[in-house]
Amino acid sequence: MSRQTITHKDGVVYEFAPDLEGVETVESGAELTIETRDSLDGAVQSEADVIESVPEEVNAATGPIAVEGAEPGDALRVEIEEIRLTEDQGRVITIDGFGLLDGDEGIEAPRTRMTPVDDGGEGEKATIAFDDLAVPVEPVVGTIGVAPAAESYTTLVPHDHGGNLDTTDVTGGNAIYFPVFQAGAMLAMGDCKAAMADGEMCGTGAEIGTEIDVTLEVIDGAATDVGLARPLIETDDAWKTVASAETLEAACELANRDAVDLLAAAHGFDDTDAYLFSSLAGGLEISQVVDPLVTVRNAIPKDYLPSPF
Amino acid sequence: MSRQTITHKDGVVYEFAPDLEGVETVESGAELTIETRDSLDGAVQSEADVIESVPEEVNAATGPIAVEGAEPGDALRVEIEEIRLTEDQGRVITIDGFGLLDGDEGIEAPRTRMTPVDDGGEGEKATIAFDDLAVPVEPVVGTIGVAPAAESYTTLVPHDHGGNLDTTDVTGGNAIYFPVFQAGAMLAMGDCKAAMADGEMCGTGAEIGTEIDVTLEVIDGAATDVGLARPLIETDDAWKTVASAETLEAACELANRDAVDLLAAAHGFDDTDAYLFSSLAGGLEISQVVDPLVTVRNAIPKDYLPSPF
Repeated sequence: MSRQTITHKDGVVYEFAPDLEGVETVESGAELTIETRDSLDGAVQSEADVIESVPEEVNAATGPIAVEGAEPGDALRVEIEEIRLTEDQGRVITIDGFGLLDGDEGIEAPRTRMTPVDDGGEGEKATIAFDDLAVPVEPVVGTIGVAPAAESYTTLVPHDHGGNLDTTDVTGGNAIYFPVFQAGAMLAMGDCKAAMADGEMCGTGAEIGTEIDVTLEVIDGAATDVGLARPLIETDDAWKTVASAETLEAACELANRDAVDLLAAAHGFDDTDAYLFSSLAGGLEISQVVDPLVTVRNAIPKDYLPSPF
Repeated sequence: MSRQTITHKDGVVYEFAPDLEGVETVESGAELTIETRDSLDGAVQSEADVIESVPEEVNAATGPIAVEGAEPGDALRVEIEEIRLTEDQGRVITIDGFGLLDGDEGIEAPRTRMTPVDDGGEGEKATIAFDDLAVPVEPVVGTIGVAPAAESYTTLVPHDHGGNLDTTDVTGGNAIYFPVFQAGAMLAMGDCKAAMADGEMCGTGAEIGTEIDVTLEVIDGAATDVGLARPLIETDDAWKTVASAETLEAACELANRDAVDLLAAAHGFDDTDAYLFSSLAGGLEISQVVDPLVTVRNAIPKDYLPSPF
């Protein structure tokens, strides 16, 4: 089966809305290559190109892709097989009014630093350069989500539908599960980084265009069966609940509550025992602190949680 | 050189105060074994023993230990060689009014679950049991600190002097550096866990008595030279700034600011470039969200930061 390619020319969205219309319709099981532009739509090609304020349209998400048979109450599994860079440089920037240390003494905005890619040659890992420092390329899909239940969200913010999660675990080899809120799910993604720190403190990673190989699968009734209200990530060794909220404290509560529910269901624990156990293994991780809703995850090692699906 | 042992019978503190008096005085370079009681001073020996409210005195910290020659402006390096459990069971508990999900539907407090230790036998890793789940023993020193500059802090809270940091990286094989605020530094530690999740969501890990092998070293003038205002952790592969504050957002800002300062000094970056770089590698991590001041760290891989000392 040849891999269908969907590019930003097929369509992009800057808002996850309940009434999205798909630019393509695919079957459950489809293997796709999704091409994405950098989050700034190519506006930054050198260090002279600075972004004065957060653009009204940012984080173009390629899609939406309608998945046949996906209905509210189902889960959509997005397996991310590989993310390939399609530019020879990324960019990391400050924007006035945006970022963890915005307005702090000595922190200037706007500023742009380009991060050239070195593919490393035969058998070597690719890196990006920041002055004389080489950072391994570990690509991240920053914005990925489905059509939400009721409200609309720009691609700048994360919420229960996904969106601007900026979570380093959304990378090759992992899978992310979304609750399906609307018929067809309406998946879209973009805003990739060649590398990003947990936290994405200055407001960006090394923003870059990519091609993403994914396999989509609809799991009938799974969101209802599992009580999946928000995204869930599967890595090699952990399940990670993902929650976004106005404060890190509120996001931590949601992510931990979701982890407690999964542990309780898996082991027949009551909520209190699941909560006590959650305090012993894995734990809370920061995704991003800047979008301006913030995102955290609660990792549960697979040793303690079989697949909830 | 035989290893000197300091036990809780030599002295404990429930408050890190500026005017602590040492129970022992040791030289820089001293190799010590510190014996610590569990954070609840032995009050919980079975699941019938519950803690109704946070005790006025909790997290007994063995010490304080005066280190000869330590003066304000110096740094104290505490290398943690090994943490050995001295009890055959730990305990993980909820307390009314305490913990991330306190008051949430289905979360009962007080509750106690005992976590028996299985030493695993020859060549096997020790574990603690929670029902039929076995969690690897990965001990953590929850409370560790020095006499603060001006204010006093109970051993329930963390701040710039250390205290109740509840940080999983404070474990065997790592080192933690403190700014010295008072002559002699006045190191104390306790509140160990057999295992703990990042976040310590229910308010405890598996609380347990321990013996901790440490080596202490005074680094002359290092706090002033490095601008060390708060604890800093050295792991095998990273330097991690550690910051505590009233909100996770504020703690993230402090931890990131400290990371920016270290990166700027190491590479001759201005603050903005250091900030941009900090957003590409390593990143923010959650220590604990419950103490009630919260603690986060900002990891900088050693690939990008030589020892600042």
